[in-house]
Amino acid sequence: MAQQEVDAGAAAKALKAFAAIVGAGNVFSSEEDKVAYSDHFAPDDMEEQHQPSGAVAPSTVEEIQAIVKIANEYKVPLWPISRGKNFGYGGAAPVLKGSIILDLSRMKKIEVDAASGTVLVEPGVSFFDLYDYLQQQNIPLWISVPGNSWGSVAGNALDRGVGYTPYGDHASRICGLEVVLPDGDLVRTGMGATAKGTTWQLYKPGFGPSWDTMFCQSNFGIVTKLGLWLMPEPESVLGFDIDVDKPEDLGWLIDTLGQLRREGILQQSPSIGNWLRAAATMTTREEWAKPGEVLDEKVIAAIRKKFNIGWWAVALRVYGPVEITEATLKVLERSFNGKPVLKMSPTRWVKGGAPEGSPATGVPVTYPLANANWFGGRGGHLGFSPVLPVSGDLALKYFRRNYDLHNEYGFDYHPSFAIQDRSMNNINQLLFDQDNPEMVAKLDTLFRTMVKEAAADGFAEYRTHIGYMDVVADTFDFNNHALGRLNRRVKDALDPNGILAPGKSGIWPSPKKGGAA
Amino acid sequence: MAQQEVDAGAAAKALKAFAAIVGAGNVFSSEEDKVAYSDHFAPDDMEEQHQPSGAVAPSTVEEIQAIVKIANEYKVPLWPISRGKNFGYGGAAPVLKGSIILDLSRMKKIEVDAASGTVLVEPGVSFFDLYDYLQQQNIPLWISVPGNSWGSVAGNALDRGVGYTPYGDHASRICGLEVVLPDGDLVRTGMGATAKGTTWQLYKPGFGPSWDTMFCQSNFGIVTKLGLWLMPEPESVLGFDIDVDKPEDLGWLIDTLGQLRREGILQQSPSIGNWLRAAATMTTREEWAKPGEVLDEKVIAAIRKKFNIGWWAVALRVYGPVEITEATLKVLERSFNGKPVLKMSPTRWVKGGAPEGSPATGVPVTYPLANANWFGGRGGHLGFSPVLPVSGDLALKYFRRNYDLHNEYGFDYHPSFAIQDRSMNNINQLLFDQDNPEMVAKLDTLFRTMVKEAAADGFAEYRTHIGYMDVVADTFDFNNHALGRLNRRVKDALDPNGILAPGKSGIWPSPKKGGAA
Repeated sequence: MAQQEVDAGAAAKALKAFAAIVGAGNVFSSEEDKVAYSDHFAPDDMEEQHQPSGAVAPSTVEEIQAIVKIANEYKVPLWPISRGKNFGYGGAAPVLKGSIILDLSRMKKIEVDAASGTVLVEPGVSFFDLYDYLQQQNIPLWISVPGNSWGSVAGNALDRGVGYTPYGDHASRICGLEVVLPDGDLVRTGMGATAKGTTWQLYKPGFGPSWDTMFCQSNFGIVTKLGLWLMPEPESVLGFDIDVDKPEDLGWLIDTLGQLRREGILQQSPSIGNWLRAAATMTTREEWAKPGEVLDEKVIAAIRKKFNIGWWAVALRVYGPVEITEATLKVLERSFNGKPVLKMSPTRWVKGGAPEGSPATGVPVTYPLANANWFGGRGGHLGFSPVLPVSGDLALKYFRRNYDLHNEYGFDYHPSFAIQDRSMNNINQLLFDQDNPEMVAKLDTLFRTMVKEAAADGFAEYRTHIGYMDVVADTFDFNNHALGRLNRRVKDALDPNGILAPGKSGIWPSPKKGGAA
Repeated sequence: MAQQEVDAGAAAKALKAFAAIVGAGNVFSSEEDKVAYSDHFAPDDMEEQHQPSGAVAPSTVEEIQAIVKIANEYKVPLWPISRGKNFGYGGAAPVLKGSIILDLSRMKKIEVDAASGTVLVEPGVSFFDLYDYLQQQNIPLWISVPGNSWGSVAGNALDRGVGYTPYGDHASRICGLEVVLPDGDLVRTGMGATAKGTTWQLYKPGFGPSWDTMFCQSNFGIVTKLGLWLMPEPESVLGFDIDVDKPEDLGWLIDTLGQLRREGILQQSPSIGNWLRAAATMTTREEWAKPGEVLDEKVIAAIRKKFNIGWWAVALRVYGPVEITEATLKVLERSFNGKPVLKMSPTRWVKGGAPEGSPATGVPVTYPLANANWFGGRGGHLGFSPVLPVSGDLALKYFRRNYDLHNEYGFDYHPSFAIQDRSMNNINQLLFDQDNPEMVAKLDTLFRTMVKEAAADGFAEYRTHIGYMDVVADTFDFNNHALGRLNRRVKDALDPNGILAPGKSGIWPSPKKGGAA
């Protein structure tokens, strides 16, 4: 890796110059500020290794362009954040210690095209903001929300976050970006590249190469506006909440849901979670076991009994006119015939009735964040998220291996398997207690072991924490890391001074000629 | 435009060197060969302006890498084609006269993952090839085909061609590419960038920036393998063939279908075509009018009567288990209640029954190509294809304006409106007779007039003919052509000698230092 160091003197000068652009009140460089923009979900060591040297919070595109110009002059790296709530993946903190946070949370414009079902948001707009806006304006469009709805709508989509409705693959619903390039040039993608841009939010590809996906999980530009498709409020949302009793039920459950997804009968991506995903937001570990004790099947059974939950659970929902959702429900029901289901509770929301009030109906939530309290102390979690083929046998193999690994290292296994069109995202939340040094010491080894074992089978992560971006990027090794070479060539072409988010997704600028390597 | 000229001497030397790589039998440089790789649907002048200086047909990635190396040495441009059947948009011919065609039609490998519903194809695989393969292997997966199924599956998707089923937005079903970059480096995108690449065809984005859409309609690399999702054979395909009687019925028809598409009730993109789209494949103009005569409503009525067709017609199809498609059909029917429908003929295919045998059920076709014979002589057509918001009023405005323009210039109006999620592609086929000099002379003016008028409203084309790529790219003028600057920066970074498809989508390499501008 072309790891570099930030020149503290240059950073201080840049921060001073930023104050002249945005006002001193929007530049943050005290020790408290640095902590505020750090990664609170990371162990202390890691948090310290990724501490920024300050932050600047512009409110307009012109201010961003002026900031970028200064960053280029002083060769100081900027780490853009939308709202900084990327918990488990780094929060607000940069890969490279000493980077200056470019905090876009003040930029909160929302423009909805109600007839077409689209929105154009600035990075500071949270899921709550957008939900409130639609409610207040009485616009019959639903948003898709992630488990942490404090986050930024734009930031979440750009980082490929997911949600619960048929629009839950947020990145795939992006339609048009406005981007400040690392040299300050302002570009609009797709049909937004025409001056009038009448169809900017309506047609994704534009003419010639399309760039939206190139600004996802990358450091090629600062996204200042993001177009997104919203779901017209359906006439009904019907479904089943399904629980199964045994660990090995995961196999048939995945195969059943995989087929329903491939055939387009299920249009959301159902996420199968284990008993701990459910329990960790409702109780804490100390109520059930002594520190260091492995949670055996007896304890798990007790927890499951108390909260009336399966070993695995999944929520299925179908959206649309009642005739269609009712017919689809019958097909779903049939596909579970003869399967050892523990509980299969129907759910039903029809327009005009009391709202289900869950994220399945586009209502923002934060309760899943409570799982960070599971171990007590200052909680945290780290996501290990490989992409796997949709195969029950394979999932069982991975489940058993990672379950044993977790127990071996003293962690409690907290996995989910989200069934997508052709793949599944196996998101494992490594819950831990930042105040437990023994646990923290093992975290890194466990994480690296899982990355390595997945890579040996040809599986890679869809997203990772700032501390592991190089580790994950390194597993993309076809033709001696050809993808990394491509990434870097574009990086160097667009960002010759390497000022934008160096290290993001493992992409580092080339060492400068005449400078330190 | 940084228009350049190809050095004929260098091209001749390169062709000789190519023979050493692929064998003399796979290098083509006679006058007949040049004609074979020209644009047969273009008027003579235009065909001549885009004539290649020869062609080379490799059969392996290694041969392509060796060819690219030589092209860089001699600074000779290559124009990659998959099968060269991009009729109406240039066929096999290059933007820049004298470019050497890199003909990939010998590369015909097909790898299907039947369980996951995906395929990896080389560029030479046609829709017929893939269809035959699935039939022979008895694999229950359907392909989505365009009107010209002679074309390449990969080439069509990369050029953003469309088809009739829910998988008809072919580019959006691409999952993973293998690409030879202009310097000969070999990269695999997405999850294919891991050496084992187990999930290459299963998860599109990969980790970090994703590149698949950047290799669409661009000149940044030579795609040698393309992953594509295929539709599991549904249990049933039900639908309606709908005809309406009056030109102005287009308005409500678009608004009705637009809502059904936005709400996800219709999952394919229905294409509304006028009477001429239907008639031009069944009859020729001379049977109905004298040359130069405008086709008035009386003639149109006679043609419509003979073939029993509406002024506009559209085929709606829904796919899935019978319970769901039957329920969906009821919703469709209800949405047409009270509308002035001329004919609404139900269609029904259920697994095991006689196949519908139409492209709506994934069967390859070529009959739409017959429309080139409409005017007699050597037929041709040119596509004018703006992207519009889904609005009946707007469509009527465009319809009237372009209809009058066609009549004014002596062309017969042959439009279709394909209703997508949030936009509609208004594909106008400018049919003409290459042997009618008067008509050919007017073609260029008519085309440029329509581009200009659309641009004034903020609308641009999704795809265009090689002769108009600069004209269309020029309408992307936000921030003084910021998109063009971005395109060129990446172009120069990846292709410093500018050897790959100069001028494709209006992207030209920067003039070389010390060379001619």
